[in-house]
Amino acid sequence: MSIQIPRGTQDILPGEVEKWQYVEEIAKELCKKFNYKEIRTPIFEHTELFLRGVGDTTDIVQKEMYSFEDRGGRDITLRPEGTASVARSYIENKMFGNPNQPVKLYYNGPMFRYERPQAGRFRQFVQFGIEALGSQDPAIDAEVISLAMSLYREVGLKSLKLVINSLGDKESRTAHREALIQHFKPRIGEFCGDCQNRLEKNPLRILDCKKDRDHELMGTAPSILEYLNEDSKDYFNKVQSYLSALGIDFEVDPTLVRGLDYYNHTAFEIMSNAEGFGSITTLCGGGRYNGLIQEIGGPETPGIGFGLSIERLLAAIEAEGVELPFQSQVDCYFVALGEEAKDAAVELLFNVRKAGFSAEKDYQDRKIKAQFKAADRINSRFVAVLGEDELKQNKINVKNMETGDQVELPLQDFVSAFKELAQ
Amino acid sequence: MSIQIPRGTQDILPGEVEKWQYVEEIAKELCKKFNYKEIRTPIFEHTELFLRGVGDTTDIVQKEMYSFEDRGGRDITLRPEGTASVARSYIENKMFGNPNQPVKLYYNGPMFRYERPQAGRFRQFVQFGIEALGSQDPAIDAEVISLAMSLYREVGLKSLKLVINSLGDKESRTAHREALIQHFKPRIGEFCGDCQNRLEKNPLRILDCKKDRDHELMGTAPSILEYLNEDSKDYFNKVQSYLSALGIDFEVDPTLVRGLDYYNHTAFEIMSNAEGFGSITTLCGGGRYNGLIQEIGGPETPGIGFGLSIERLLAAIEAEGVELPFQSQVDCYFVALGEEAKDAAVELLFNVRKAGFSAEKDYQDRKIKAQFKAADRINSRFVAVLGEDELKQNKINVKNMETGDQVELPLQDFVSAFKELAQ
Repeated sequence: MSIQIPRGTQDILPGEVEKWQYVEEIAKELCKKFNYKEIRTPIFEHTELFLRGVGDTTDIVQKEMYSFEDRGGRDITLRPEGTASVARSYIENKMFGNPNQPVKLYYNGPMFRYERPQAGRFRQFVQFGIEALGSQDPAIDAEVISLAMSLYREVGLKSLKLVINSLGDKESRTAHREALIQHFKPRIGEFCGDCQNRLEKNPLRILDCKKDRDHELMGTAPSILEYLNEDSKDYFNKVQSYLSALGIDFEVDPTLVRGLDYYNHTAFEIMSNAEGFGSITTLCGGGRYNGLIQEIGGPETPGIGFGLSIERLLAAIEAEGVELPFQSQVDCYFVALGEEAKDAAVELLFNVRKAGFSAEKDYQDRKIKAQFKAADRINSRFVAVLGEDELKQNKINVKNMETGDQVELPLQDFVSAFKELAQ
Repeated sequence: MSIQIPRGTQDILPGEVEKWQYVEEIAKELCKKFNYKEIRTPIFEHTELFLRGVGDTTDIVQKEMYSFEDRGGRDITLRPEGTASVARSYIENKMFGNPNQPVKLYYNGPMFRYERPQAGRFRQFVQFGIEALGSQDPAIDAEVISLAMSLYREVGLKSLKLVINSLGDKESRTAHREALIQHFKPRIGEFCGDCQNRLEKNPLRILDCKKDRDHELMGTAPSILEYLNEDSKDYFNKVQSYLSALGIDFEVDPTLVRGLDYYNHTAFEIMSNAEGFGSITTLCGGGRYNGLIQEIGGPETPGIGFGLSIERLLAAIEAEGVELPFQSQVDCYFVALGEEAKDAAVELLFNVRKAGFSAEKDYQDRKIKAQFKAADRINSRFVAVLGEDELKQNKINVKNMETGDQVELPLQDFVSAFKELAQ
């Protein structure tokens, strides 16, 4: 019996993998332009990191982590997201002492959440994200948002919606929190048990509740925007004016909140409103987290970043019907007839590749017609035919498969002659 | 208290990550030239796959796997190597029915083995590997070996040693096996318990034993090469003559064996003999495994491949003192003085990046001198200075940091003027 792939994971195969390579290359190039450098952290971390860095009351930590004990008895978890690992590395490698501030990092790699698999949702998915640590300039908030928007635009997406909000600074959040408690407290008995627990601990998360979302108090809950103090208002205004200056449209949505204490100021989401994209429309989420580094044991450090799933990005590309501009092709296919010609082809093939071309030959002992078909299937630009007669005359017949033109190239000097022909 | 990275794993940080990007890019380009396509399989698989595909008597499976139960009670293991996963995917996705044969695949990603961490050995390491499935042409064996050698050569390594051997076909292996049993049986009592167990099950693995390596019977054990039948000899000769034709030096070492039953014919290793490389000198191991696909539930399919560690490749580069040709640089740094200029810089920065340049500005509210220093530290080619006077005159002063030349570019048309200057 054959063994199957684990549920909720996928193989990315040739034919599909080129799309991944394409969008990841664009992301990498964008990071270069924006001066973000790659960081690679391990696939797993001590579980403690995510309890603190993602939050031990979140669904991710409570229900979705791949946690286990390693052979040394350590509690280990496959990373469910990227920010906590980057923050851990930032502290451990003392990047706060780096003269280049802010420290601007990007990552791209697999993340793991044990969720119910459904269309567009995998247990292993690839997250691309950036983090800018060490600056509280609102211009960096705009930079982070603009990098995400640039990525979606450069791959060709058009139906995008950027939503932003401010969670304010600590003072603003505390004032808002009090207002929320006052708002919900008199009728908290009408809410679910989770919400009743949240009331004193973290009333902001009541607004996220899926069970109680239709309760009449939800719509009338006090908005964070009414509780922003002057500094927080100025900060948020500055972010907005930068976005406008960069030609990036957005909507302000005061219900866009993040439950964890260390989030503050800017929060944002990018959504696809492409028709037929189905139910999952959030492509990217991010925001400012000035308390995170301290939460996991480092010095007080402002930070902002985002994370996005490559799977959803590709789904949005599919939904909008964007054609990605890449094609699979080789430069030269060697068709060989007879033992001697086959041996000569092995050497020519190697030398043509060494000169920088992609090239292929038959390894299945196919007849000549089947070799031509194979060349055609892999979309070879040229086919070089090594027959016994041609070899005796030290010549190789080369056919341009686009134009149908044929030329004879010298066997001895084949590589340089082919170079001239193919360039 | 801060949380540390799991033992035996590492963060790859800016300054170091560029080396990884560089060698992985070369590997990717080589695969393109050799017409191998990328495949990405999940980080974990059902444990059963590795029991069968790697072999349940191996050290990897018995002592080194990161195995655990997921939340659904499945036995899951972080992949310890790449071939078993590719083989699983080959079967599951019915690639044996692909008209393009052989199926030529490459992978590059993290693998996991719970070993004692030491210099150059990590519990999470990155393996790059290729597999060619579906052909038993000795020319493909030469192709696979030549791709590995090309990679090491292209990154600049010189102190390389290629060792090859043949394990023969089934008939040859059976004959050799009998000879080994006859050789060791009379004195097997002088060997360790493991070897005594191996005698009937898998006498080939006695030759790998570290405890008994100095026993006098080891040196006089019958060589596989004496037991190759005609077909196997022809096959091995063909591989050798192809390697010679490609200008690849090698040594034949009949003690290079692989214990698992599904290995046959070609086996090879590439070693570094750079001085000061320390004790681990094997860079790459590979070979033919015509029985693997069948072993894990697929149709009989010939296959050959190799796996190599990027960590060891980089260690060899270090040991040979090879300088990798990349440099970290940005095209333009915007120095801004005053609020108005800073706001203008945000917009210019975005537009210059949009035009394809890498660019940066200050986000730390630094003084002008410190901004220039920051530009210098990140090796900026140009520095654009936005002062209040210049802005009033709609001009920006741009300094070429290599030559010291300064020019004034118009504010309105800055991007296209900069384009002309910087190209």
